[in-house]
Amino acid sequence: MKRAVVNAVVLTMNDRMDCFEKGYVRMRGGEITEVASMEEWKPDGEEECTDAAGMWMLPGFVNTHTHTPMTLLRGYADDLPLHAWLTEHIFPAEARLITPEHVRLASRFAFAEMIRTGTTCFNDMYFFSRVIAEEAKRAGIRAVLNDSLIDFPAPGFGTVDEGLALAEELIRAWAGDPLIHPSVCAHSPYTCSKETLLKAKRLADRYGTLFQIHLSETRQETETVKKQTGFLPGEYLHRIGVLDGNLIAAHGVWLTPGEVRLFAGSGAAIGHCPKSNLKLASGVADTASWLRAGVTVGLGTDGTASNNSLDMVEEMRFAALLPKGVCHDPEAMPARDALRMATIEGARAVGLGDRIGSLEPGKRADLLLIRSEAVNMQPVYDRYSAIVYAMNSGNIVSSMAEGEWLMQDRELIRIDEKETLNDLMERFGAKAGVLR
Amino acid sequence: MKRAVVNAVVLTMNDRMDCFEKGYVRMRGGEITEVASMEEWKPDGEEECTDAAGMWMLPGFVNTHTHTPMTLLRGYADDLPLHAWLTEHIFPAEARLITPEHVRLASRFAFAEMIRTGTTCFNDMYFFSRVIAEEAKRAGIRAVLNDSLIDFPAPGFGTVDEGLALAEELIRAWAGDPLIHPSVCAHSPYTCSKETLLKAKRLADRYGTLFQIHLSETRQETETVKKQTGFLPGEYLHRIGVLDGNLIAAHGVWLTPGEVRLFAGSGAAIGHCPKSNLKLASGVADTASWLRAGVTVGLGTDGTASNNSLDMVEEMRFAALLPKGVCHDPEAMPARDALRMATIEGARAVGLGDRIGSLEPGKRADLLLIRSEAVNMQPVYDRYSAIVYAMNSGNIVSSMAEGEWLMQDRELIRIDEKETLNDLMERFGAKAGVLR
Repeated sequence: MKRAVVNAVVLTMNDRMDCFEKGYVRMRGGEITEVASMEEWKPDGEEECTDAAGMWMLPGFVNTHTHTPMTLLRGYADDLPLHAWLTEHIFPAEARLITPEHVRLASRFAFAEMIRTGTTCFNDMYFFSRVIAEEAKRAGIRAVLNDSLIDFPAPGFGTVDEGLALAEELIRAWAGDPLIHPSVCAHSPYTCSKETLLKAKRLADRYGTLFQIHLSETRQETETVKKQTGFLPGEYLHRIGVLDGNLIAAHGVWLTPGEVRLFAGSGAAIGHCPKSNLKLASGVADTASWLRAGVTVGLGTDGTASNNSLDMVEEMRFAALLPKGVCHDPEAMPARDALRMATIEGARAVGLGDRIGSLEPGKRADLLLIRSEAVNMQPVYDRYSAIVYAMNSGNIVSSMAEGEWLMQDRELIRIDEKETLNDLMERFGAKAGVLR
Repeated sequence: MKRAVVNAVVLTMNDRMDCFEKGYVRMRGGEITEVASMEEWKPDGEEECTDAAGMWMLPGFVNTHTHTPMTLLRGYADDLPLHAWLTEHIFPAEARLITPEHVRLASRFAFAEMIRTGTTCFNDMYFFSRVIAEEAKRAGIRAVLNDSLIDFPAPGFGTVDEGLALAEELIRAWAGDPLIHPSVCAHSPYTCSKETLLKAKRLADRYGTLFQIHLSETRQETETVKKQTGFLPGEYLHRIGVLDGNLIAAHGVWLTPGEVRLFAGSGAAIGHCPKSNLKLASGVADTASWLRAGVTVGLGTDGTASNNSLDMVEEMRFAALLPKGVCHDPEAMPARDALRMATIEGARAVGLGDRIGSLEPGKRADLLLIRSEAVNMQPVYDRYSAIVYAMNSGNIVSSMAEGEWLMQDRELIRIDEKETLNDLMERFGAKAGVLR
């Protein structure tokens, strides 16, 4: 399928931050073949051509850390201390709820929200990822997926070795797929032994996949790891040899300057989740110092039980505003840096920097169209500022992943939104009584 | 005109936080006459009846601090230190731009954004408030308005006495109007002499209006006041006798515990602007301690040059999440408290607690209808949580002020949105070249 989107303001987010005031993107299948000014435009005659006059085109957002099926637990237990939240509410609810059938519905539901809010690629950490992969493929959204290894029985597998076998099965099943990117995940250094971490990392390295882990989300967890291993979490990963350019650590709130240098030196990335870190009272990450140190930083929503939204526009807003207020420095996080975290840096953080995150020939066609002619965005003196500080997800009107439309003019193309919403409400709505 | 809205989930936000699972609100003219369960419903035969089945009804949001015509300067100069931002960019731009004609257009434009995002009442601080009042009346939005007194020539008046005369004129012109509430404003204790503050407060007291002032927004400003007067800003207002139950101070970021006690004791209110305080790097206000002390706290967006949005849903989200992360306490600001700040506490903060902010017989009919059956809000385990943590302004489908529809099913009723948008873009859009 040959397609082109023409007459848009094209914000490429490439290394030079090139922008075409009136430009086009041409693609063949899922690949971008041309990005240029309309002055260069020559109609092809055979391609499906979309006129995006008055729109801005951006690469799709990359959500670098989430647990999509937790949409079932959105708002299930809010305003509680982390320990009580997790052990008395979330874990028991998950134990009852996490079945392949529920994961399927909850994932599809999450994809509808994600697509409506501009996400075209997400990096997940959950269970029954086989099911999530099938649903993501059907929905057309790009997914980095795994079953989260942990040293006790988990939904879908009993032992770490069974989990590793599942992970390898997922990797083999989707080998070469343009949209589904299996990865390997170990839950955290405080729930996984050194042996588990090393087995997981070896599997990731054997297949060249991303390796994902929770790290330094709370102060307490950092102290636990220090007590158990003698090292701070980042030091520990470095010493056992898993901190490298294929690793993404979610959160990192309590990383010390020394650990941040280890991240920068090794090329390891961080998935920054500002809203979840606020809501669970984990703290405020010093992202400005991470960027100064040269760490690759993407943005993540975390799961909807601790956010309670999958909206990357909001995440970007919090990521841009928090460092300013907390560090008392209005220059701590310029709009461009926040937008880069949501796009190209996020793509790099999940190991897809050569495929997505910017609009350039040779990359995959994952993109958004934004209608900036709206009362909440005008006037516009600087487009990056307008996107980061004024835009809301309702201004995103269309999106595409791998060259296929996911949303056009606010209508979802590949998900039956009404049916998905009804399904979820019937099973988990106020009257379903499943949970309470 | 007799109207009723029936079959909604009615969240009254009254002192008991009463909720009718299937309820109605009946009104005559601008006044609410009944709020009850549908079991009590008896059709009247003469009234216009709106079926809100599946919707949630809330009181409209009260924006307790903004500068509406600054929509012209949305995103004009971002990511800059406060002093350079204000003196090198905002003040010069305002000096060139602030004409009655521009204020008229910019206000109407702001009202469109405000109505779309759930605001039915705002407390403004600007110049040419006569013009803003006319436009607010036309748009049907409730407004608390003034010309901001300051000890140097300002747009619209040369001396403080001329400003006071304008203020009195505004008060007399709108006496008894149900929608337009003139007030008196002195810009701040560092830009107004003691004499100016006292003259302004005397005028407010003579007519029983609200008195508004900027206070303790930045650390530097607090130190300036201390140097000039020998007292901290809150102490100073208290000593000169202007701190009382008719005062609202915008910001208050740097108020000390002693000053907070003065606010609580006097009944003075604070208009909390979390996003603006982050963006301008002013700091993070300790709102949890304010509420514990018993201070009346409302929410404000501030102007769009320092936000860059007038969206109260976002403001509520920041107000709910920030204290948790910054104080490392997930219980620091429960969802209900954040929603109360956006509604009933905001109404009290601007001196309208007996008229608006909750849905009760005898109050004015300012309300919102929310469509919660959406992929970003379901499932719902707690409605207050869903509103504060998951809802976005797109879920607000209809709104009413003083018994008149402002928006129905996302269409603005009293403002020609397209024409207003085009007008603004023609004069201030990228190609207009007015500013750059």
